[in-house]
Amino acid sequence: MHDERTTASELRERWPLLSPEERIEGFERLDRDEAEGFFLSLSPRGKAMVIGGCPAGERRIWMRLIAPDDAADVVQEFPPTDREGLLDLLDKTARNEVRALLAYAEDEAGGLMSPRFARIRPDMTAEEASRYVRRQVRDQPETIYYVYVLDGEQHILGIISFRELLTAPGDRLVREIMKSEVITVPEDMDDEEVARVIARHDFLAVPVVDQDGRMKGIVTVDDIVDVVQREATEDIHKLGGLEALDIPYMQTGFLPMLRKRAGWLALLFVGEMLTTNAMARYEDEIARALVLAIFIPLIISSGGNSGSQAATLVTRALALGEVRPRNWWRIARREIAMGLSLGGVLAVVGLLRVVLGEWLFQSFGEHAFLLGLTVGLSLIGVVLWGTVCGSMLPLILRALRLDPASASAPFVATLVDVSGLLIYFTVAEAILSGTLL
Amino acid sequence: MHDERTTASELRERWPLLSPEERIEGFERLDRDEAEGFFLSLSPRGKAMVIGGCPAGERRIWMRLIAPDDAADVVQEFPPTDREGLLDLLDKTARNEVRALLAYAEDEAGGLMSPRFARIRPDMTAEEASRYVRRQVRDQPETIYYVYVLDGEQHILGIISFRELLTAPGDRLVREIMKSEVITVPEDMDDEEVARVIARHDFLAVPVVDQDGRMKGIVTVDDIVDVVQREATEDIHKLGGLEALDIPYMQTGFLPMLRKRAGWLALLFVGEMLTTNAMARYEDEIARALVLAIFIPLIISSGGNSGSQAATLVTRALALGEVRPRNWWRIARREIAMGLSLGGVLAVVGLLRVVLGEWLFQSFGEHAFLLGLTVGLSLIGVVLWGTVCGSMLPLILRALRLDPASASAPFVATLVDVSGLLIYFTVAEAILSGTLL
Repeated sequence: MHDERTTASELRERWPLLSPEERIEGFERLDRDEAEGFFLSLSPRGKAMVIGGCPAGERRIWMRLIAPDDAADVVQEFPPTDREGLLDLLDKTARNEVRALLAYAEDEAGGLMSPRFARIRPDMTAEEASRYVRRQVRDQPETIYYVYVLDGEQHILGIISFRELLTAPGDRLVREIMKSEVITVPEDMDDEEVARVIARHDFLAVPVVDQDGRMKGIVTVDDIVDVVQREATEDIHKLGGLEALDIPYMQTGFLPMLRKRAGWLALLFVGEMLTTNAMARYEDEIARALVLAIFIPLIISSGGNSGSQAATLVTRALALGEVRPRNWWRIARREIAMGLSLGGVLAVVGLLRVVLGEWLFQSFGEHAFLLGLTVGLSLIGVVLWGTVCGSMLPLILRALRLDPASASAPFVATLVDVSGLLIYFTVAEAILSGTLL
Repeated sequence: MHDERTTASELRERWPLLSPEERIEGFERLDRDEAEGFFLSLSPRGKAMVIGGCPAGERRIWMRLIAPDDAADVVQEFPPTDREGLLDLLDKTARNEVRALLAYAEDEAGGLMSPRFARIRPDMTAEEASRYVRRQVRDQPETIYYVYVLDGEQHILGIISFRELLTAPGDRLVREIMKSEVITVPEDMDDEEVARVIARHDFLAVPVVDQDGRMKGIVTVDDIVDVVQREATEDIHKLGGLEALDIPYMQTGFLPMLRKRAGWLALLFVGEMLTTNAMARYEDEIARALVLAIFIPLIISSGGNSGSQAATLVTRALALGEVRPRNWWRIARREIAMGLSLGGVLAVVGLLRVVLGEWLFQSFGEHAFLLGLTVGLSLIGVVLWGTVCGSMLPLILRALRLDPASASAPFVATLVDVSGLLIYFTVAEAILSGTLL
């Protein structure tokens, strides 16, 4: 017994790194009991891989183990031509349920919901309802938290927790003990939004209704964990300056990975080419005061870093619903003060660097103090500008109904690099003309 | 009725942007029923704010509404001197439970668990157990999914879902129908790890045991949503190059926010100062071939961007448990190939830029092709280096038991900027000496 358990947990451990063939092979070496638990813990993609890889005769067993909402996701992993064959393996009820679910997009409430839930009528007694629910529960793969009170047209009249139903006096009517204010979500609501509704109210499940208000199913909190995890991964990838991978790092093929990275990288590169124009424009200044060139990487990178911080904060706050584009002025005010303070800190360090460099090593010549002032003031300007760009860009993207997470650290840095050069040389001309320039 | 509802949802909407005083004021304007639901949906911090702000006479009502695991979090939001007073508001059982929970760190299984769960003995019949559980359930604020079968010393013998218990033949013994393989988590397990266990198995709850294997409570999936959300926020903030905020953006005070941003920004700035040394070292080369300076921002930013992509991917894969530091060689091989390919793409674009610039505008003089070659080869080197650094750094940090998310886009960019300059000027010396240099 103990040996087999080790094998299952070993397989789980090594799973992400195995090839499809190795996975099937490992899976078939598990004993039956273990295999079931292991199979059910796999992602839809993993389940599809097992079903696709196992002998045709065994497919029915595995397909029938899966709850309908999960089965719909698994079926979608197969090419359209194979889907009907898989549906035929299910019993009639399940097949119809899965087929109905396949009509929804994967990332909306309807695609996430289970069509199985416990329902009762308002005029049952608590005793009758409780018996009735226990009978329904027998065939439900989903655990029951709430019992929904529906009228003949499947409109929701109320909700009662299973616990409350069990402990209510047996002769009270359901309509007397139910809660009649029910928060529902429409079937086409984005799954991220559904996750927010569930998380905000600490619900265990939320009912999904169609546009006529008829109840179609429930989305349960355990499905939400996956959504939250996946959305965070997407945002993190985008913020890192690449297209989000939809499958794990190790399983993404070389070419799809290259495409997802090369696209943004090339785009940023083309944007960054503007720096060559900016640099060329100031070639004379650089020729006259070569020392100016020395600080270019330092100054433009500080703008990029402060912009990256601001963009990250605002993008995440947007994703969590903490701020909205219409709060832009409060955010802008705050970030302007922040940019000035952060720029001030760097300016002091930068000025000290130049003055100390001159004092200790005579690196910068007689105009060292003016040079230090140029570096310091440029830093304030560049950091302020980076902070403002970084904080406003996600708000603008959201207001334009684009993804705020596209305001990635590299994107903001690129944006700020070009303008950072302009700020630096403008400040230099103002302070150093007549001396170094 | 309808009006009040609007007020509650309005209040929820505006909540993140309100001052503490405005929150209390808004909260006190809700009618009692609404206020309860609203209160329970608040974060521990929000609940603490309401309790701290409401008249002393009302505090008992609100404290007693909260489930013990949540109450422990709320109490921890108060200064230590106020905590005993709050505990005194609870009834004796709850007070003892909360006090026990306060002994755990907030971010470990014990700090997350509820001490209330349904328990039965192995030698009860299903009928007896089911009645017994329904009695326990009456006083449980947590919903029940699983019923735990414990011996006299609180060791877990088995588990049975409430649904299975309800539908089992009444005369079967619990020990015959229970599942005896139970996955548990130790009380000091990190909450992120607990989240992974629950997510991987699609559990609704997982039992927490002490070091002697005695069951102490359960962590439920709805608490995990918050953990997953919070951990993602922490990682996103760190990847953006700042210290993670532990409270929402709008509620973080100006000075704490400044500290969390200025720290990393100044550190990165000091690191980036090495670029001034690198630039100073190549001052002669720049003086001889000023055109070299023009491409500096373009080349170093490409290294930073490719490094940011790689670091983001590997950090997230580590967080999701998809890769481990011991897989470093597989990752390195892959990223070397990726770096060469990405660098190749940019090199072609870069070479074209120089050659076209010369052809159309005679920007670069007679050695334009050699200059283009220098830019192209440097790009391959810099992007390759960025990709390798970016992918290995999170693995090294994890292996050293540091947080891989510290390998932020700005951090990697800073690291690569200095080495990018060295690569660029080395390539330039090799290709251009005798012509431009």
